[in-house]
Amino acid sequence: MSLTLYEASVPVFTRGLTILSSMLDKAEAHASGNGVAIASYIEARLASDMLTLAGQVQRASDTAKFGAARLTATEAPSFADEEVTLDQLRERCAKTVAYLGTFAAGSFEGGDTRAVTFGGGANKQTLPGNRYLLQFALPNFFFHVTTAYDILRHKGVPVGKRDYLGPFDETSA
Amino acid sequence: MSLTLYEASVPVFTRGLTILSSMLDKAEAHASGNGVAIASYIEARLASDMLTLAGQVQRASDTAKFGAARLTATEAPSFADEEVTLDQLRERCAKTVAYLGTFAAGSFEGGDTRAVTFGGGANKQTLPGNRYLLQFALPNFFFHVTTAYDILRHKGVPVGKRDYLGPFDETSA
Repeated sequence: MSLTLYEASVPVFTRGLTILSSMLDKAEAHASGNGVAIASYIEARLASDMLTLAGQVQRASDTAKFGAARLTATEAPSFADEEVTLDQLRERCAKTVAYLGTFAAGSFEGGDTRAVTFGGGANKQTLPGNRYLLQFALPNFFFHVTTAYDILRHKGVPVGKRDYLGPFDETSA
Repeated sequence: MSLTLYEASVPVFTRGLTILSSMLDKAEAHASGNGVAIASYIEARLASDMLTLAGQVQRASDTAKFGAARLTATEAPSFADEEVTLDQLRERCAKTVAYLGTFAAGSFEGGDTRAVTFGGGANKQTLPGNRYLLQFALPNFFFHVTTAYDILRHKGVPVGKRDYLGPFDETSA
């Protein structure tokens, strides 16, 4: 076996959300050090019809949460998209990480071939679990973490690629 | 087995580069339809010390190319970062996809535990192949595809999340 579905999802999402939360810490330090209202970062977006930084964090959380739930045929908890402060966004990351921590690796068995339905309305799709992970959940998760990073970079927050990649860990699941 | 190292790399990179090239098509159509010089997109960046759109395409190509080479303990071809036109950037995507197409799934066997060294200077790292893929190659690849998308969105090109995700394919490797 090369990679289990668990390995390619839960620890990846957990890393990404932890990194995202750390980038929010850097945003806070930069805002307070430069007399900038943190709300101007939280509400920032790269185009008028794109999501704000808060929206990017919420969608990263949802993609991780639903990814783990769908691959294990379980129900994800509902998280209201009500975060308006950095503390609330960090808490959103933390509770998503805590939820991911409830999954045992064995609960992903059979998930690779399980039919996973996702998206709504005209975008409703069904894919086998392994395709869902590789074609939707991972690309979409990294999309939102990266766009959060790009928003912060665009606002002048001194984060770099090493912050996005985070510390490497050869012992990770 | 849930996912082979091949499945979690070659088809994922191939999809992403194909999608990236399609987004460049949309950028070209938007520029020509609005009397905008395409160079203003190719040279665009989200922060003065970030890479341009051209640079994002080059790094996505490199991450895919080196990802496949390192996981199979083979040598990647050298691609000079000389692209300055959309046609050249699409050709960079195409030749990377063609290179990825030369890999047989079986050549990734044992790649998950093979020590992979990457990065240069103070950033030089060694990880087992499966950690290299999940902690560096995939996050870094999606970083550059997403940032290319974010640059285009920031410049007003009408691409959307469905363009970034691309058409789903349940029969993909």
